[in-house]
Amino acid sequence: MLEKPFRGIIPPAITPMIDNDTLDVAGLERLLNRMVDGGVSGVFILGTTGEAQNLSYTLRKEVIRQACRIVGGRISVLVGITDTSFSESLSLAGIAADEGADALVSAPPYYYTPGQPELIQYYEHLANQLPLPLFLYNMPSHVKIMIEPHTVRTLSDHPNIAGLKDSSANGVYFRQVIYLMRDKPAFSLLVGPEEMMAEAVLMGAHGGVNGGANLFPELYVEMYRAAVEKDFERIAVLQPRIMQISMSLYTVGRYASSYIKGLKTTLNLLGVCSDFMAEPFHRFERAEREIIRKGLIDLGIEV
Amino acid sequence: MLEKPFRGIIPPAITPMIDNDTLDVAGLERLLNRMVDGGVSGVFILGTTGEAQNLSYTLRKEVIRQACRIVGGRISVLVGITDTSFSESLSLAGIAADEGADALVSAPPYYYTPGQPELIQYYEHLANQLPLPLFLYNMPSHVKIMIEPHTVRTLSDHPNIAGLKDSSANGVYFRQVIYLMRDKPAFSLLVGPEEMMAEAVLMGAHGGVNGGANLFPELYVEMYRAAVEKDFERIAVLQPRIMQISMSLYTVGRYASSYIKGLKTTLNLLGVCSDFMAEPFHRFERAEREIIRKGLIDLGIEV
Amino acid sequence: MLEKPFRGIIPPAITPMIDNDTLDVAGLERLLNRMVDGGVSGVFILGTTGEAQNLSYTLRKEVIRQACRIVGGRISVLVGITDTSFSESLSLAGIAADEGADALVSAPPYYYTPGQPELIQYYEHLANQLPLPLFLYNMPSHVKIMIEPHTVRTLSDHPNIAGLKDSSANGVYFRQVIYLMRDKPAFSLLVGPEEMMAEAVLMGAHGGVNGGANLFPELYVEMYRAAVEKDFERIAVLQPRIMQISMSLYTVGRYASSYIKGLKTTLNLLGVCSDFMAEPFHRFERAEREIIRKGLIDLGIEV
Amino acid sequence: MLEKPFRGIIPPAITPMIDNDTLDVAGLERLLNRMVDGGVSGVFILGTTGEAQNLSYTLRKEVIRQACRIVGGRISVLVGITDTSFSESLSLAGIAADEGADALVSAPPYYYTPGQPELIQYYEHLANQLPLPLFLYNMPSHVKIMIEPHTVRTLSDHPNIAGLKDSSANGVYFRQVIYLMRDKPAFSLLVGPEEMMAEAVLMGAHGGVNGGANLFPELYVEMYRAAVEKDFERIAVLQPRIMQISMSLYTVGRYASSYIKGLKTTLNLLGVCSDFMAEPFHRFERAEREIIRKGLIDLGIEV
Repeated sequence: MLEKPFRGIIPPAITPMIDNDTLDVAGLERLLNRMVDGGVSGVFILGTTGEAQNLSYTLRKEVIRQACRIVGGRISVLVGITDTSFSESLSLAGIAADEGADALVSAPPYYYTPGQPELIQYYEHLANQLPLPLFLYNMPSHVKIMIEPHTVRTLSDHPNIAGLKDSSANGVYFRQVIYLMRDKPAFSLLVGPEEMMAEAVLMGAHGGVNGGANLFPELYVEMYRAAVEKDFERIAVLQPRIMQISMSLYTVGRYASSYIKGLKTTLNLLGVCSDFMAEPFHRFERAEREIIRKGLIDLGIEV
Repeated sequence: MLEKPFRGIIPPAITPMIDNDTLDVAGLERLLNRMVDGGVSGVFILGTTGEAQNLSYTLRKEVIRQACRIVGGRISVLVGITDTSFSESLSLAGIAADEGADALVSAPPYYYTPGQPELIQYYEHLANQLPLPLFLYNMPSHVKIMIEPHTVRTLSDHPNIAGLKDSSANGVYFRQVIYLMRDKPAFSLLVGPEEMMAEAVLMGAHGGVNGGANLFPELYVEMYRAAVEKDFERIAVLQPRIMQISMSLYTVGRYASSYIKGLKTTLNLLGVCSDFMAEPFHRFERAEREIIRKGLIDLGIEV
Repeated sequence: MLEKPFRGIIPPAITPMIDNDTLDVAGLERLLNRMVDGGVSGVFILGTTGEAQNLSYTLRKEVIRQACRIVGGRISVLVGITDTSFSESLSLAGIAADEGADALVSAPPYYYTPGQPELIQYYEHLANQLPLPLFLYNMPSHVKIMIEPHTVRTLSDHPNIAGLKDSSANGVYFRQVIYLMRDKPAFSLLVGPEEMMAEAVLMGAHGGVNGGANLFPELYVEMYRAAVEKDFERIAVLQPRIMQISMSLYTVGRYASSYIKGLKTTLNLLGVCSDFMAEPFHRFERAEREIIRKGLIDLGIEV
Repeated sequence: MLEKPFRGIIPPAITPMIDNDTLDVAGLERLLNRMVDGGVSGVFILGTTGEAQNLSYTLRKEVIRQACRIVGGRISVLVGITDTSFSESLSLAGIAADEGADALVSAPPYYYTPGQPELIQYYEHLANQLPLPLFLYNMPSHVKIMIEPHTVRTLSDHPNIAGLKDSSANGVYFRQVIYLMRDKPAFSLLVGPEEMMAEAVLMGAHGGVNGGANLFPELYVEMYRAAVEKDFERIAVLQPRIMQISMSLYTVGRYASSYIKGLKTTLNLLGVCSDFMAEPFHRFERAEREIIRKGLIDLGIEV
């Protein structure tokens, strides 16, 4: 059973791959074990960072199975079921429940653009049929719409909707949601961008789903604790480090894929897993890899 | 074998459904037979109008099988394989080839946002492995990016890429593509929005993939011929009718789904098929249905 | 008095400048006289192409005065009064009337984003007080909103609103406006992008406000006449030339300013006027200038 | 002389008006005196909240003169000079200096869309000629572009550029700027949205330019101090009140103008000044006014 509200650092795991249809199982083991050792509360598989939409369903199901097996109950497993097809979301959810995952996460369907009333109806129908608690996932840069604050408030009345992961980077939005949810302390409010995690927790968020926790889980866990404890001395030390990671490792190359490519290249340089990427993306070539390596050295990390 | 360039009216078929996972086979038969009788050159199944992204893969494959069976070679069948997952696109393409379809259509992967060089690589990798010719599908309102004119030009060199369907409604874009492709007369240039079809054909396009041809296939075929023959008397009669259809039947309700809902409600009122819609959409209720009915009466159509 | 509907080619004149606050009067004379000699119906000064928003009011008023003096009634003068401040729009309109201009053109106020009802009220209040007929100017890329088709229809009832210039490049939009205005043949419908001018005129538009007519006015006048006469042999010759101009001269450099910079550099190379640009833009440097020169040579033009 | 970095609450003043061209001077006196009494550090006139772009230049200059006179040196006066015309910005700046203002604020030119290098050049040219220190103003919703973090860093080297006001609501952006400016403690970082002010100050911002401080200046000053002192008990009391103001007073009606209309209506209900608005906006009518009144009663404020 998931703690209510669910708290802490929940890394959105990258998906280590050997080729377009094959999971790098050994890499996934190293990745998840590092996270567990780093003190995270859970792991979110098949999210945006996990390239979920680019993976075949066979591979997505393999990710669920292997992740649940490796984690083995040591931390919570949240499974992304974001899909344009309601039926495919349900199918992924069924596997997740069978394999022992703890919760599900779904961004709005992202090809067509539903209106907010359509979105409410969609999430209610989905939550009605899901075997596990659902986290809403606000991700407007990828799905074209916001889950508006009043929509979150309405959906929070559903007994099977447990929280929100907000990756909008919009501080006003997150404040509005926190305000509207002030009488529902069990509803978990998680923030995506690691750059904003400390302040979000200081102001009432319950944790972070931060990509950098793939790389250095203990750093984000420490920052989370510093924020919970309002330890501004620690925050003042950790925030620049988090920013340095973000601004040196996630910004190589010109496209939106820089962030995931940066994570995978770094993990590969750290010896954790393969840096193969699913179509339409491709691993960094030598030049970009060298920039990442230099970024790591500047961070004082041996590679 | 597909004519080169492929020409004429190719309706993007709606997908008649009985429930979220069940095809309305009898409705699909009536729909496709009406199209064939109306003189269309082909049918495009599993496009945006077909709610493809909202359907399970099982249902998508059933649509391919049934459509190919019903059409039985009388017209060409183009199958939408647009997907965020390369592997799932290939899987749909395999079914399409097995069932005897004539060509494939794919918009860019639409969750992550690739850059143009990534997009070129993606389409080349895809076309390399496809068993049938591919049409590029420019659909920026849904996939967030344009397939830029120079990208189309580059991709047109691939022997397995046969044409472009442009649904951007951007007249400058389409003119640029026509200009860049002026030395490749076999590359098929098709326009999505029916409101622009006549002028596109007048200026060099090869046909239209027009939603209204679900409803009144012969009207769009007649307009296509009028444009090919530069018969401005006919165009002057037909264009206002096409506009009246567009502005009265596709604009009921407030959301982006108005267009598909309008098509399905109209087809239901015409006795062709069910108006059920896949999640996250839902059929029009009585009030909206009444507006559509009135729109049809204003068009002089008995329902 | 302006012909109703106003027809033909109306170049959106660039503003020749010597420095940020000084008009290149001799250059403006050469520019406008070329246009008159080229057979245009009017000239649109202080539009987007004229860098109007970047000019001081003193300079804008000088442009109005000098253009009206130079034109001297040989063609119509349309004056852009687009402004975020209602009072400043009125002030520019007053000067335009005093100097003998024929009509005014205004895009929506462009800092704040009005809703359509606010926009209707705004244009009605403005037209009530204007001393000359007003053309609406649809320019969503710069002002963030469309003047929606039904808004155009509503505003066309105002006795002082004479037409629409549409620079959206959206073919569906323009078809919708033409359809809604079908019972108002005196309302002038003009298209901005020269790439779409021929087809727009073929389908019912009254003319084009085309930037390229700064460079080669007779080419666009000839295309306009070919479209009016449905002379597809001429269109087939002229359209590729218009596209070559657009794709070689307006696309140098990476920013939105490429188009105006291209026009000004070309005019400078042709010996017409200075290529100085108002802040925040700056004239092309040698490398870009060389690309433009080569583009002109490819077009068979001696420079 | 402006403190370095400039700190505290600086309300972006609304502009009280009697009609489209006449300042409500008595209202402005009451408004500014309330602010001074409330403990603010400065006032920002002619910003977005001040409807600057909608005012004539004559009226803008009157606002500068009257505001400087009323304030009389009791607090700092920052003057918005945002304009599409470089020359008009300089002209406003000249008046501001003559009247004794302390600093200037400018968002990017907002009709054309400059690239970042063009923007750097623009701000450098501007700052070179300004008689007072300049604050950059990041306002992408209105001007269509961000002043990117590295652009801020580059511009901060200019001796006449003193700070940044960020109204993007993008928490990642603001964190990036704070990180890049960590070695320049004299560069003032101010946040626009009041909903984010506390957390921004907790994480290193120097103050807030918060619209609500027109209404209740002491509330925002108290929150600023609580954040500076990391007094989470006070923050926990004040943040919900700030959110209640934002969510009940700024969200009446459907358009982007709701926020300024809400501020003006509230100030009118509080007896401070006229609620007249410049074109294209118009004061709320009875129904919306009643909702605002009820919102104030819910806040425990007698009106």
